[in-house]
Amino acid sequence: MASKKSTNITRHDGAVTRSDRARVLGQRGCLIWLTGLSGSGKSTIAFELERRLTDDGFAAYVLDGDNIRHGLNGNLGFSDADRAENIRRIAEVGKLFVDAGIITITAFISPFRTDRDAARKLLAQGEFFEVWINTALDVCEERDPKGLYKKARAGEISDFTGIDSPYEAPLSPDCVIDGNSGTPKQAAEQIFKLIDGRGLLSAPSNEN
Amino acid sequence: MASKKSTNITRHDGAVTRSDRARVLGQRGCLIWLTGLSGSGKSTIAFELERRLTDDGFAAYVLDGDNIRHGLNGNLGFSDADRAENIRRIAEVGKLFVDAGIITITAFISPFRTDRDAARKLLAQGEFFEVWINTALDVCEERDPKGLYKKARAGEISDFTGIDSPYEAPLSPDCVIDGNSGTPKQAAEQIFKLIDGRGLLSAPSNEN
Repeated sequence: MASKKSTNITRHDGAVTRSDRARVLGQRGCLIWLTGLSGSGKSTIAFELERRLTDDGFAAYVLDGDNIRHGLNGNLGFSDADRAENIRRIAEVGKLFVDAGIITITAFISPFRTDRDAARKLLAQGEFFEVWINTALDVCEERDPKGLYKKARAGEISDFTGIDSPYEAPLSPDCVIDGNSGTPKQAAEQIFKLIDGRGLLSAPSNEN
Repeated sequence: MASKKSTNITRHDGAVTRSDRARVLGQRGCLIWLTGLSGSGKSTIAFELERRLTDDGFAAYVLDGDNIRHGLNGNLGFSDADRAENIRRIAEVGKLFVDAGIITITAFISPFRTDRDAARKLLAQGEFFEVWINTALDVCEERDPKGLYKKARAGEISDFTGIDSPYEAPLSPDCVIDGNSGTPKQAAEQIFKLIDGRGLLSAPSNEN
């Protein structure tokens, strides 16, 4: 049966506020938006960070191709309009997760500035972190974990970011990860410190 | 700065599991799907339940028209196809929230069995609760909080559920709320007890 988890919680009336959620979770929600080429390490770093946060008792969740493309965005293709709608929906879901107080990490190439800027605009100041996983194209192509670069070079895939479709590097990211050297663990630690430094990993003390 | 919230947490490798999240949150995620006529009391009960759970230290979140129709589903209209897509996206987002460990409450009329059944199929056994807010049409129409029944009767709105569009009552709901009598607080308590009875409001003890 349910046990009241906090003894210092009192009854409230009215809608649950962001601060109520922050007190329950001991954290503030935010959207950590990873962007970078295919093979740059986004997903690996996202799951490393999710692991790091969870191990420390924080509520974190990764939105990535696996849980989005097969579900919510399963009815989208790869036309320009569908790619934009793909990112729009991810950003809107991210906003709901942040509202719920979750530290949310997205791992999508998201090559276009206009889409990333639209995502940022959905969130409040201090809730959105654009993190550029800056891995050189030749490093990504050398890794080629899914064999996609090979297919793109062979012309079997078109509009592939970095090959025949542009990647628009962030102009003023909140954080840049050197994806050429360094481990995913180090990258996750760098992002962990960023959001910790902004006070997101503790409950608010004196507000309603 | 971040404080490690639990002292009995050890370092893990690999992907974060449902059980990891349940341990961090002290609960299991589930999707509580409220269905009923306009004016039946869905939203009021949803927010009452969210308040109740939050006051007890649980992580709960309501998906309703306000945060869905203006955001994620802002590009949908009211055609048959768009109504179905509306419910599909809500169910997919609910699934992501449940995966993240959140007690998630949806408050939409969702008049068609086929849409609600599709939502149920997305979730695992024991994670989805269809809750019928069973309020008589004349009671809803008497309340008419948004003046919609009046407009529907005047022919200013078409395809309005209960007037010129059917409401397909649940055939085997997990819970039926008597919306004619009883308070929203009592309704929320009934649902709270339902999920508590299923063991969702405590952390798993012996599993990985």
